[in-house]
Amino acid sequence: MTVSPLALPFPDLAPIAGVRIGTARTGYKAGRTADDVTLVELAPGTTVAGVLTRSRCPSPEVELCAARLMGGRARALVVNAGNSNAFTGAAGRAAAEAQGVRVAELLGCGVGEVFQASTGVIGVPLPEALALAGAAAAFAALGQGDFHAATLAIGTTDTFPKAATTAAMLGDTRVTLTGIVKGSGMIAPDMATMLGFLFTDAAVDPLFLQEALTAATAKTFNCITVDGDTSTSDTVLAFATGAAGNAPLANWQSPGADAFAAALADLCSQLARAVVRDGEGATRLIEIEVTGAASDASAHRIAMSIANSPLVKTAIAGGDANWGRVVMAVGKAGEPADRDRLGIRFGTTLVASEGAVVPGYDEAPVAAHLAGSEVSIGVEIGLGPGRARVWTCDLTHGYISINADYRS
Amino acid sequence: MTVSPLALPFPDLAPIAGVRIGTARTGYKAGRTADDVTLVELAPGTTVAGVLTRSRCPSPEVELCAARLMGGRARALVVNAGNSNAFTGAAGRAAAEAQGVRVAELLGCGVGEVFQASTGVIGVPLPEALALAGAAAAFAALGQGDFHAATLAIGTTDTFPKAATTAAMLGDTRVTLTGIVKGSGMIAPDMATMLGFLFTDAAVDPLFLQEALTAATAKTFNCITVDGDTSTSDTVLAFATGAAGNAPLANWQSPGADAFAAALADLCSQLARAVVRDGEGATRLIEIEVTGAASDASAHRIAMSIANSPLVKTAIAGGDANWGRVVMAVGKAGEPADRDRLGIRFGTTLVASEGAVVPGYDEAPVAAHLAGSEVSIGVEIGLGPGRARVWTCDLTHGYISINADYRS
Repeated sequence: MTVSPLALPFPDLAPIAGVRIGTARTGYKAGRTADDVTLVELAPGTTVAGVLTRSRCPSPEVELCAARLMGGRARALVVNAGNSNAFTGAAGRAAAEAQGVRVAELLGCGVGEVFQASTGVIGVPLPEALALAGAAAAFAALGQGDFHAATLAIGTTDTFPKAATTAAMLGDTRVTLTGIVKGSGMIAPDMATMLGFLFTDAAVDPLFLQEALTAATAKTFNCITVDGDTSTSDTVLAFATGAAGNAPLANWQSPGADAFAAALADLCSQLARAVVRDGEGATRLIEIEVTGAASDASAHRIAMSIANSPLVKTAIAGGDANWGRVVMAVGKAGEPADRDRLGIRFGTTLVASEGAVVPGYDEAPVAAHLAGSEVSIGVEIGLGPGRARVWTCDLTHGYISINADYRS
Repeated sequence: MTVSPLALPFPDLAPIAGVRIGTARTGYKAGRTADDVTLVELAPGTTVAGVLTRSRCPSPEVELCAARLMGGRARALVVNAGNSNAFTGAAGRAAAEAQGVRVAELLGCGVGEVFQASTGVIGVPLPEALALAGAAAAFAALGQGDFHAATLAIGTTDTFPKAATTAAMLGDTRVTLTGIVKGSGMIAPDMATMLGFLFTDAAVDPLFLQEALTAATAKTFNCITVDGDTSTSDTVLAFATGAAGNAPLANWQSPGADAFAAALADLCSQLARAVVRDGEGATRLIEIEVTGAASDASAHRIAMSIANSPLVKTAIAGGDANWGRVVMAVGKAGEPADRDRLGIRFGTTLVASEGAVVPGYDEAPVAAHLAGSEVSIGVEIGLGPGRARVWTCDLTHGYISINADYRS
């Protein structure tokens, strides 16, 4: 598979104390050469928070995570790649449960502390024997893997491994946050076949970890879209091992809580944009900023209407400053808008203002902006204080090529 | 432009008494060789009804039609192709108003009886001098044109002319209905750059004509989608000249009202499916039938979620019976659904039932079905009596090629 032209070099990642990684290949999918089972052992006391797909047809792994998140504690994460185990009925559910039990046995923890995710083709039950053997093999390899290996082992149609790292000071204690993510299609609001796993050595109470993660996700993972499709398996989990030794963050009033939340949001933002950079067939990263909407929620819906418009995305693919299609996408969003107050910019060039093209509009700087690999579109609604920013990619022949022949 | 492989031969169309057609070329768009102005003269007494885009950023022509539909009477229709006049501010509005006034002067009718539509690029004000000259030239040609000529003259990216004709008996009186339509992209619920003009010699009171048109549109034009994008210019207008001499249809109790409404719905259905057949890049017409939903409205939203899913549409383009993507699209619709009751068929083959693939599922008949040019997908939700049927087309390289380089 051709590497996305928007790929970033793999960053230097800080290890996280309390996290041990092992990967193995069990063979879920013929022809795959990368490892396909990832096991992460988490130190006792690790807290967990998560955000899961809102699909009405989730995978059993998603259901298991939802139930176990209630407990707030994690000792293990196991991820299967090549089979999503979604829509597989009782057989798939049984295989997922069995794999969780096996991991708990291997690590000597409760099954309620095992978090699970699977990604790949829908509709084929996870082969239980492979799932159990894979878990055992990854367990045997614990400590030999690192975040880079895990990033490769959780990927499917990804063309490059995506990860990020950041840090924050909680009083005198430096804490580190490292995240890995996979996903390149079926990406939409409320996530999509996207798996994101965030690790920190900070000590964080699970309820506050959930608050911080939910806030970060709302402005990052839920602000990206590749094709408007939402996966049955989307999962973002954050694990906090507490190994850094800070006083546990309990709420927004805890010293360092804001710094931690900001670092977590920064990590999510880096990872979310990396996912868009690996959007199937993407040749341009597109940032869409909507201002002046009736509310932030309204701005978000307008921005997503633009970001999901095939006509806008193909225009950008063609390097065409077709702002008329942006108008169209604003109009179809169903949100308050007044055609005669609308303003549109491409890059820093104002193209349209108060409902019509600006006098003497010069397309040259816009064409130059669109020739680059990062495109910025701004829309001023002119009605209120609402604003939002979302990211998407262009829609190209590459998307069609990848998706018209994925399962076969 | 390559003609769609789903194109239908142009049908024999019945002329409609009380309708005179003239077309001309005024030159809105460089390189266009077809006529680009269509004038339809309607006999005195003609009633009119219409359904217009719900875009919050409509063209001035749409606004003029909306205001004039209140009057319920029509003497003229003028259509410009190559320039949509949308998002063109005061200059575009003035040009549209001036063209309406000129048509009214030429025909000696009130400007409130002139209906107008424009289609093409957004953001360039309709050149007023060309619009006036075009109207005059089309007026001079009145009576020389026919529905075939008009169909060609209202088209833009259409690859074949789309029209249909039908008839109904109102008591002893036979009435004829003929419709023409243009559109091949930006097609979505609540219409899209789709213009549809329906003509009948039946005598129909405008209020009932509106009721019948609204009902027909809900099950036809609002049940098609090519790319989920909604145009700023969508317009469907129905004109009833009354030349057939039947007792005017005043409401659903009028003798023949049901027959007329059924014929109108049939006409709309033929035209709507013809639009999907000319979907940009389409190689397959896809019918999606959802049953067992909580309500008809819920079924419609689920069906549209499937029909607008790029992953479903690319799978069909690849001849891939990827029913997992159908599950995904059901799940993301946000409507009541229970994964473990879901059933899915391709053609007449049941693929999945009660949340899992059927035992012994044989892909061969499904692959054979997908190799054809008309694909049928059925989804049983298993919750209630709601049902809906929508039409779309596959998403291919052709769509990208057309839309990544349309405006330039």
